[in-house]
Amino acid sequence: MSNVRVLMWGLGTIGTRAARMLVQRPQVTFAGAISHQVGQDLSFVVGGDELGIEIAESPANLGVVEADICLLATYQRVPDLMPQIEWLLDQGISVVASGEEMIFPWASHPELADQVDAKARAAGLSVYGTGVNPGFVMDALALCLTSCCASVDRIDVTRASDFSSYGPGPLRSLGVGLTPEEFERGLQDGTVDGHIGFKESIGVIARALGWPIEEYRDQIVPIVSTVERRTPHIAIAPGHVAGCDHWAEALIDGKVVIRLSHPQQIAPAAENARVGDFVRIEGDPPISMEISPEIEGGQATAARMVNAIGPVLEGPPGLLAMDQLTLPFVTPLGGARTPVGNHAT
Amino acid sequence: MSNVRVLMWGLGTIGTRAARMLVQRPQVTFAGAISHQVGQDLSFVVGGDELGIEIAESPANLGVVEADICLLATYQRVPDLMPQIEWLLDQGISVVASGEEMIFPWASHPELADQVDAKARAAGLSVYGTGVNPGFVMDALALCLTSCCASVDRIDVTRASDFSSYGPGPLRSLGVGLTPEEFERGLQDGTVDGHIGFKESIGVIARALGWPIEEYRDQIVPIVSTVERRTPHIAIAPGHVAGCDHWAEALIDGKVVIRLSHPQQIAPAAENARVGDFVRIEGDPPISMEISPEIEGGQATAARMVNAIGPVLEGPPGLLAMDQLTLPFVTPLGGARTPVGNHAT
Repeated sequence: MSNVRVLMWGLGTIGTRAARMLVQRPQVTFAGAISHQVGQDLSFVVGGDELGIEIAESPANLGVVEADICLLATYQRVPDLMPQIEWLLDQGISVVASGEEMIFPWASHPELADQVDAKARAAGLSVYGTGVNPGFVMDALALCLTSCCASVDRIDVTRASDFSSYGPGPLRSLGVGLTPEEFERGLQDGTVDGHIGFKESIGVIARALGWPIEEYRDQIVPIVSTVERRTPHIAIAPGHVAGCDHWAEALIDGKVVIRLSHPQQIAPAAENARVGDFVRIEGDPPISMEISPEIEGGQATAARMVNAIGPVLEGPPGLLAMDQLTLPFVTPLGGARTPVGNHAT
Repeated sequence: MSNVRVLMWGLGTIGTRAARMLVQRPQVTFAGAISHQVGQDLSFVVGGDELGIEIAESPANLGVVEADICLLATYQRVPDLMPQIEWLLDQGISVVASGEEMIFPWASHPELADQVDAKARAAGLSVYGTGVNPGFVMDALALCLTSCCASVDRIDVTRASDFSSYGPGPLRSLGVGLTPEEFERGLQDGTVDGHIGFKESIGVIARALGWPIEEYRDQIVPIVSTVERRTPHIAIAPGHVAGCDHWAEALIDGKVVIRLSHPQQIAPAAENARVGDFVRIEGDPPISMEISPEIEGGQATAARMVNAIGPVLEGPPGLLAMDQLTLPFVTPLGGARTPVGNHAT
């Protein structure tokens, strides 16, 4: 894999970060780019010297594209991504997608997942979804830790995030600044919403461990501050919402076997709320892990995409999930893995 | 992989724990056992009902053995393991070994490693070494975390262990109870020694990340207690050795890029010494992880062996390391992985 030709599709926050990582990897060349910055050279987005890649508005405007793989950072949901993925497979291009539902599409869209899987296998290509959450903290990392266990009874993961650096836009969907009553109305009308990916994280854990999940439930709970909280962007009074905790549980025989929790709030230190990624395995032996502060989301999701290029291109054809790919790690050369027997010490 | 036939070779602490895990997995049958408990039924070691497997003294006493894989828990060093591994490959049996040097045999024995690799490939079999350390905390786990990074400048791992539950036997090699002068003499005459596996952990990280390590150094440093320390098994006076810290560093361009440290001592709380597994990635983004208390070593090493059975049997032929196998996780059925598209939710 001396030269990997990458098509970028979607140059929002994640796609742009991924493109900036790839431009520093000599073994990667860009095969094209599709995004809303139409007509600009790709260097307009990633910086640096002109790259000779004009950003196209859509596949129809792309011209002939010869790519090994596409980093697809457009939509979160499988149905929205389907036409794009099918077009890519028709062009002979494998896919790494950042959309949350793509990390385990069987969870919410089993028929579409089977359809992509069949199409990818027939074409000898691979399709893979990844990110930091879902895609790592609440699933891959927890699974990896269970490899030290003779048996596992339950997995708990909490990703507790500090949103103090965010402006009013992203905070609106967390309900920040609302009264508890307004928060409830926001849940009803959809202006307050939570994390996408719980079903996917639970689905891939359950498949890997062979757990026959019988029941799934989740809830979005407001975090009502008892004190004033202040960030550079917003201030809230006591009794108002500082964020929300979206949690999900998976049950077997009426017992919770997986619990995932994702509290996101501003100024958590104001009430001594812990921030970080926490994985607790009830098993033999038990394992309690903490990453503090939490892994930075945007950069890590883009890095997970970039670092998946090598494993995906070397993996089996089909729609893949994290339990089918080799141990992930940073690949400084954009996907190249050194051959067996090449020892550096 | 509906039935996996496992040969047990070496029923010491690790092998016995692994056998106890396997006996609870209905998809595993024992194909034979070699250990010093000669003539006993394997149930003598693992407990429970008679298994109809008589423990043999050596391969010569084993009779015809039809096994898919051997869990080999006999020696720590590659040269000691070589004749056993070669005999197993001659019988058509793949190998999961617990010996520390086996997690990356190219580090200390590149020629023997190439020899095993060639023999395994020719036979279409796989050979793999694993454990919790080396084999997880200082290498696989650190590598896995780097998958969230665009770039990594340095990796630090500390595994700080509490040996208070150990008796005088295992504590002797740590120098516990010695004066600093006696400790130095112990290092000279080899009665005090350290961790095996630093070169292997560094070797596999370096291979995975493509880091051209130029210099390696390690040292065993006594942990001299300033207070009295007492366990159920031993008491030491102030000024005496409570354990030792064995550390290793790998350098590129005169800069440390990997630092691994393994302090092991009794009663660490007496001087507020932290116990746990700590991974720190200097990268983009940085990641700081803590597992506290440290993952329990004996059980985890046996579990890592058992949980490797599936990935190794499904992996490519040859001498394998952790960077070549699928994401590890607990496999409740002793190696069975569910097929693609089998979704539990």
